[in-house]
Amino acid sequence: MITLYGYFRSSAAYRVRIALNLKGLAYEQAPVNLVKGEQRSEDNLARNPQGLVPVLVTDDSTQLTQSLAICEYLDEHHPEPPLLPADAEGRARVRSLAQLIACEIHPLNNLKVLKYLVRELKVDDDAKLAWYRHWIAEGFSALEARLANEPGTGTFCHGDTPTLADICLVPQVFNAERFECDLSAYPTLQRITKRCRELEAFARAAPGEQPDAG
Amino acid sequence: MITLYGYFRSSAAYRVRIALNLKGLAYEQAPVNLVKGEQRSEDNLARNPQGLVPVLVTDDSTQLTQSLAICEYLDEHHPEPPLLPADAEGRARVRSLAQLIACEIHPLNNLKVLKYLVRELKVDDDAKLAWYRHWIAEGFSALEARLANEPGTGTFCHGDTPTLADICLVPQVFNAERFECDLSAYPTLQRITKRCRELEAFARAAPGEQPDAG
Repeated sequence: MITLYGYFRSSAAYRVRIALNLKGLAYEQAPVNLVKGEQRSEDNLARNPQGLVPVLVTDDSTQLTQSLAICEYLDEHHPEPPLLPADAEGRARVRSLAQLIACEIHPLNNLKVLKYLVRELKVDDDAKLAWYRHWIAEGFSALEARLANEPGTGTFCHGDTPTLADICLVPQVFNAERFECDLSAYPTLQRITKRCRELEAFARAAPGEQPDAG
Repeated sequence: MITLYGYFRSSAAYRVRIALNLKGLAYEQAPVNLVKGEQRSEDNLARNPQGLVPVLVTDDSTQLTQSLAICEYLDEHHPEPPLLPADAEGRARVRSLAQLIACEIHPLNNLKVLKYLVRELKVDDDAKLAWYRHWIAEGFSALEARLANEPGTGTFCHGDTPTLADICLVPQVFNAERFECDLSAYPTLQRITKRCRELEAFARAAPGEQPDAG
């Protein structure tokens, strides 16, 4: 059995849940409560010295970390339906859209970063929220410009089937909604997110649907 | 001719330079001066709405963004020497090590983030340096634990040939050295970095060797 160590609100775990669902793979969830600090437990550090989720343990006990690496692994082991296009240019575009989110937006709005702002830099609630919204706006503006103008965009971020880019987009939009970011300037992101959410694989991966949802 | 829009001190551009050199590909450099704000120019925004470097323009005029996506594209188009292992588990490990750096360390210490700390949060020089060193220490501690303990580590991050993980490691160590971070707790990172720097592909990609080096 595949085991996913995750947390319902972790958007990196959310990405992996979507990928597992799209592939139609059964998995059990082992929640690691990030708010209670369970990621710093000895058990979790043994699984991942970074003390992060997700960690995916495959049925042959391989331990995998980093959500995008896990998704690519799943795609290589279970090729159907593909999470990346068949052509190298398409794959580069999808990976680049995914990384725009995973390397440019998400890392700045992580729980550990927000905690550092408050604890070390004594940032107040307003400034913390402004920080959060700043990186969402900067990243989403660029993403909207790409998705609205590049010919590769279809019903989904790339063509008419969901890819790794959509797997990153939907959890990031969920986070932005949770922090009440104004998303009116990003109609293409909203259109694609709405379409993704109609799919059972995305709907079933949503934070509120998880066993550890508070 | 391949054209790399980059900046000598951008570690994302540095990664792509190493990959191009490892593949033995000729390319011309088109410097975009990040300190002078040239990334916000109309020309550069047309290449990349994020206003970031690197952008790689291939000989058939395909424009590629996001350094890891560019490296994987180069690896797919020019398979020798490979930047990823032949097995899916190995590829997942290398991608996860690369992403530990590219998604967890580098994004927090980017120039645009340091500027936000100073301009918006009125952080002083000492606190800015502490921020920088905090994310290096957190990320490098986890990376050292992985590289020192995981059986996949060899002369390089994975086995005995350089991979995408080393391509991310060396520029990140360069940055850490520039900010005078104490690296004594990371002997494995230091050993691998030293070995990489002995290779011409890495040495020739170093910031000080670039045409736009100040």
